[in-house]
Amino acid sequence: MLILMHPTATAREVEAVAEKVESLGFVPHKMPGAQRIAVAITGNPGPVDPAHFSQMAGVAEAVSITKPWKLVSRETQPHDTVVTIKGPGGSVARLGGGVFGVIAGPCAVETREQTLGAARAVHRSGARLLRGGAYKPRTSPYSFQGTKVEGLKLLAEARAETGLPVVTEVIDPAHVEQVAEYADVLQIGTRNAQNFALLEAVSHSGRAVLLKRGMSSTIQEFLMSAEYIVKGGNYNVILCERGIRTFETMTRNTLDLGSIPLIKRLTHLPIIVDPSHGTGDAASVPALARAALAVGADGVMVDVHPDPTHALCDGPQSLTPEGFEHLMQELRAIAQVMKVELA
Amino acid sequence: MLILMHPTATAREVEAVAEKVESLGFVPHKMPGAQRIAVAITGNPGPVDPAHFSQMAGVAEAVSITKPWKLVSRETQPHDTVVTIKGPGGSVARLGGGVFGVIAGPCAVETREQTLGAARAVHRSGARLLRGGAYKPRTSPYSFQGTKVEGLKLLAEARAETGLPVVTEVIDPAHVEQVAEYADVLQIGTRNAQNFALLEAVSHSGRAVLLKRGMSSTIQEFLMSAEYIVKGGNYNVILCERGIRTFETMTRNTLDLGSIPLIKRLTHLPIIVDPSHGTGDAASVPALARAALAVGADGVMVDVHPDPTHALCDGPQSLTPEGFEHLMQELRAIAQVMKVELA
Amino acid sequence: MLILMHPTATAREVEAVAEKVESLGFVPHKMPGAQRIAVAITGNPGPVDPAHFSQMAGVAEAVSITKPWKLVSRETQPHDTVVTIKGPGGSVARLGGGVFGVIAGPCAVETREQTLGAARAVHRSGARLLRGGAYKPRTSPYSFQGTKVEGLKLLAEARAETGLPVVTEVIDPAHVEQVAEYADVLQIGTRNAQNFALLEAVSHSGRAVLLKRGMSSTIQEFLMSAEYIVKGGNYNVILCERGIRTFETMTRNTLDLGSIPLIKRLTHLPIIVDPSHGTGDAASVPALARAALAVGADGVMVDVHPDPTHALCDGPQSLTPEGFEHLMQELRAIAQVMKVELA
Amino acid sequence: MLILMHPTATAREVEAVAEKVESLGFVPHKMPGAQRIAVAITGNPGPVDPAHFSQMAGVAEAVSITKPWKLVSRETQPHDTVVTIKGPGGSVARLGGGVFGVIAGPCAVETREQTLGAARAVHRSGARLLRGGAYKPRTSPYSFQGTKVEGLKLLAEARAETGLPVVTEVIDPAHVEQVAEYADVLQIGTRNAQNFALLEAVSHSGRAVLLKRGMSSTIQEFLMSAEYIVKGGNYNVILCERGIRTFETMTRNTLDLGSIPLIKRLTHLPIIVDPSHGTGDAASVPALARAALAVGADGVMVDVHPDPTHALCDGPQSLTPEGFEHLMQELRAIAQVMKVELA
Repeated sequence: MLILMHPTATAREVEAVAEKVESLGFVPHKMPGAQRIAVAITGNPGPVDPAHFSQMAGVAEAVSITKPWKLVSRETQPHDTVVTIKGPGGSVARLGGGVFGVIAGPCAVETREQTLGAARAVHRSGARLLRGGAYKPRTSPYSFQGTKVEGLKLLAEARAETGLPVVTEVIDPAHVEQVAEYADVLQIGTRNAQNFALLEAVSHSGRAVLLKRGMSSTIQEFLMSAEYIVKGGNYNVILCERGIRTFETMTRNTLDLGSIPLIKRLTHLPIIVDPSHGTGDAASVPALARAALAVGADGVMVDVHPDPTHALCDGPQSLTPEGFEHLMQELRAIAQVMKVELA
Repeated sequence: MLILMHPTATAREVEAVAEKVESLGFVPHKMPGAQRIAVAITGNPGPVDPAHFSQMAGVAEAVSITKPWKLVSRETQPHDTVVTIKGPGGSVARLGGGVFGVIAGPCAVETREQTLGAARAVHRSGARLLRGGAYKPRTSPYSFQGTKVEGLKLLAEARAETGLPVVTEVIDPAHVEQVAEYADVLQIGTRNAQNFALLEAVSHSGRAVLLKRGMSSTIQEFLMSAEYIVKGGNYNVILCERGIRTFETMTRNTLDLGSIPLIKRLTHLPIIVDPSHGTGDAASVPALARAALAVGADGVMVDVHPDPTHALCDGPQSLTPEGFEHLMQELRAIAQVMKVELA
Repeated sequence: MLILMHPTATAREVEAVAEKVESLGFVPHKMPGAQRIAVAITGNPGPVDPAHFSQMAGVAEAVSITKPWKLVSRETQPHDTVVTIKGPGGSVARLGGGVFGVIAGPCAVETREQTLGAARAVHRSGARLLRGGAYKPRTSPYSFQGTKVEGLKLLAEARAETGLPVVTEVIDPAHVEQVAEYADVLQIGTRNAQNFALLEAVSHSGRAVLLKRGMSSTIQEFLMSAEYIVKGGNYNVILCERGIRTFETMTRNTLDLGSIPLIKRLTHLPIIVDPSHGTGDAASVPALARAALAVGADGVMVDVHPDPTHALCDGPQSLTPEGFEHLMQELRAIAQVMKVELA
Repeated sequence: MLILMHPTATAREVEAVAEKVESLGFVPHKMPGAQRIAVAITGNPGPVDPAHFSQMAGVAEAVSITKPWKLVSRETQPHDTVVTIKGPGGSVARLGGGVFGVIAGPCAVETREQTLGAARAVHRSGARLLRGGAYKPRTSPYSFQGTKVEGLKLLAEARAETGLPVVTEVIDPAHVEQVAEYADVLQIGTRNAQNFALLEAVSHSGRAVLLKRGMSSTIQEFLMSAEYIVKGGNYNVILCERGIRTFETMTRNTLDLGSIPLIKRLTHLPIIVDPSHGTGDAASVPALARAALAVGADGVMVDVHPDPTHALCDGPQSLTPEGFEHLMQELRAIAQVMKVELA
């Protein structure tokens, strides 16, 4: 159930609706929009009678929500959420609502030279956010686990120099506060897509969240994980399709572009595509990035490394700066045809 | 092993190479190309010593083939195969080598009105081939099994009127000869992707073959199935990605667009995409057709029905004629950016 | 809809019911049982009103069938089907209804010595049917394709000597008549599980059918494929779980033993397990054969080769005769606990 | 690399080996065994020359380890690990090395009556450990999330009364210390199988760990997750196969019993099976529990609820106390044949 208020509804009228929800034993969620406020109801075991609200002062309409996800549903908010990220020096990056955002940078932060080199290159070619992993979740305890705090500091330096907001992964609820000091967007990786303790922690971080789809998450589970974050009050969530696990072994994952138009219809949140992890192969990345734009995604996240053959992590899927520059030119041409903004 | 002949090699020199291959206990395959002839070797259990051939008259080079597929491999033929299909009245359709071909029509042939209606509509909007199923493989023996010979005759009538060559499915080796009388391209469906008796039958049909990927075929198995057809002497093979079976249930299949750039590097055969069966949802078809073009596929095959809500088969995934016309306009704009031909 | 006749119903009364079904536009299937006859109805688009039949002479009850499969459903026939196979010299093998049948032999028929050697060994250890592939469906056209008719003749020789009925695969509808001359049970392989032309051909072969689950068939699709065979009038169908395709690559397939108790509840047909193809590893075969018995399957089919390291096909998954003898001893001990017959 | 010491080696000799490992830049792990100590080496990028150690005093043998997992590998420790769990009042439960352990109890701890009722029933029927979830990871933020600390206290009460050690799930590194106060075995759920922060936290908890396979974890990833725990010094790890995610939807998961014999060959750790989550259906649980025993697993974990139809979580897969009692009788009979101990 979602209660849409009139554009002219007063704060007191909104409060009255919230109190009415509570009096019925449910939980109200006030959702401020551009034109008017809505109040979503959760905690109800079945349908709620709209008659409870339709005659109240300031109420425009009471809408029933049929899906298990509520706050992230298109039924709750028909228009696209535009996630706006403020970087250093007044810089602003946006994703969603007709803006195609490009996030690029090294898979893992290794050295100062590598990080700044990658940041300058992707900034020069037109990326709007810088990615880089400081904490790396790895299948083997004997693999490189990331440069951790040192990596965060290098990202902060690259952020300050280029003006690009930073996206970096967080893997432990206990790290959220620290990582949020350095980063603008907290990334939840595929292995933590149903780590609910972590989802709740980033929900309260004050930072935008980039939520990767679990490698075995259904679309429904993906949206429910996003619901955990939004339920905590954080509406700045960017979904990221990065490939699912199937029987095919010649590609690293199976990038599920077929889910994108469906997800766009189911939720108002922006969804981007990670063709680097989705294919595991730099030679396929540009083609899949183009396809992500053509299929209607709201952005891409691409691994770029100044020297892929010596990368400590995922070198085979990283574009060179030259490869990335070429890709950006292709994307600009298609964006024009698709009538989306790609700054 | 592949033996490339000089452009000036004589027929006798080629024959000598073939005889040499046979004398070693292997099987030679003469492959005529635009500039020169090559001879592929199969039947060898391990690597063949190039020294057997490199000094022979007319031989330019002996190349080792490292993949289990041979005749369909890019190693054997570096340039794109262009499949050329001659329709009625001198019409010609091409796929591959920079030409993006659009195949459209009803999932199943039902009535004269429906078939001709669909054929006229897709022809008007720019499709180059007409699809339509007369023999329908169905999970349940109680479901509509197709209009069979009557359907083939309706397709022939639509072909004659519009000039569009016809693609239709064949499901039994015993039907191949009959279906080949009416159709220009024989389709092998996903459930028959490893029906080797059927692959061998269409290999000798004198018709081009559209080979759908098995819903659980790996890329390697997909190419090996194509190899069965080409090994029989039929090089007019169009591969078709139509979605694989995964854990996701909100989409009918998981369309594996991530495989396309890889398959393009592995084989010289054209590969197209079927977004209708890939998603099972007409609302997602245009987005995935655009993505297929952007990712580098050589064409799409799209279900179009004059009245999808009354279709006997797969109505929910069929575009209306208006929806198809709109899609073609989008594809033309992207084709221009991608610098591929879409007539 | 299933109409159960009284045990005392006359042939004329049964005929009257069948005529009534036809008069409603549906298709009657007379199913003779041990005590009484039933008439199943197919071809009805929705529920049929039982009132059409409940007052007719000789009718005991009209039962609604809720699943898409009908003739193979437990709703249609509550008691287990026992498939009885008559071999040479009056020998009889049974599967189902509390009899656990063991089928064993080489994956592929290679030579007279190998075939007779394997047949004698498995007969000595207590197998009740001999398996052996003469026509081999192979992913690569360059792999060993089987010994074909020569293989069928070797199987016939082994059959005559040991008295074991023979199970062998058929891969082309055009071969069915020939294979049925030599074999007692026709096997449909996993790649042909939805080759409906082949399913219809074996339906009319006069032979029992061993239907393997498609490597990507759902349980529902598996039962629908069996329905194709039974619908043609052949009730002697043995289902075979042989592993499905998943993301796991360290085992050849993922043997779905969890489906067995469910399938037993859904259908009256016997279901056996193939641990050899299910795991692809001889070291795991005995454990999975024991598990098949403990989980309630009606039999196992096991690859046994006199000399696995020199097998032309699937050697790594074949037991030696000694390994098979040891397995049979284990199975006998568990069968006693499970209170099933294992001769 | 693993350095096996002589049974008579002195502490000083072991220390010298460890120092030698460190001097080479690698990490030594001293592994005390029943008869003698071994020292495993990690951190080496490639093979280590055994000559560094073979002449040192007290060294019996230096063995090369070829798998990515080391400490959990059979190559490192050829004999079975027996996990021994001390409960209240001197009670002891064991799993592995020929002892088949049964863990049973409610999916979620709900009320005092339900928890004690289930605990008494499973104790009476012969379970050796009590399971019960206090913290429940749920796909939806609106689903019942567990009774948390109150639930832990109820488990402690049931533990004290019955003498059964308790297994319960932990979902946040920050909770580990608290949960370890109440529970004997910390369970890592399927969604956290690659939550490396949590794996490291339980590694240092002083409690045994029951590690469930991720629903999309390969066998290799499963063993690598166990390696994270053992690497931290905690050798009391029980693996648990609970079903993987596949295309099949009629069963909740696909229970991968085919992996058990392979996993037993790859690692010395005990592995048990969870047929309740593996099938999602109480009617199938007994059959799969029997199969788990027959396939060679070291135990089962079974959901038992005094009143399944009113369970707050996973009722459809829970056995009644009567059903559990019947299952235990079946397991005892098979255990005798399998020659394993089931107290």
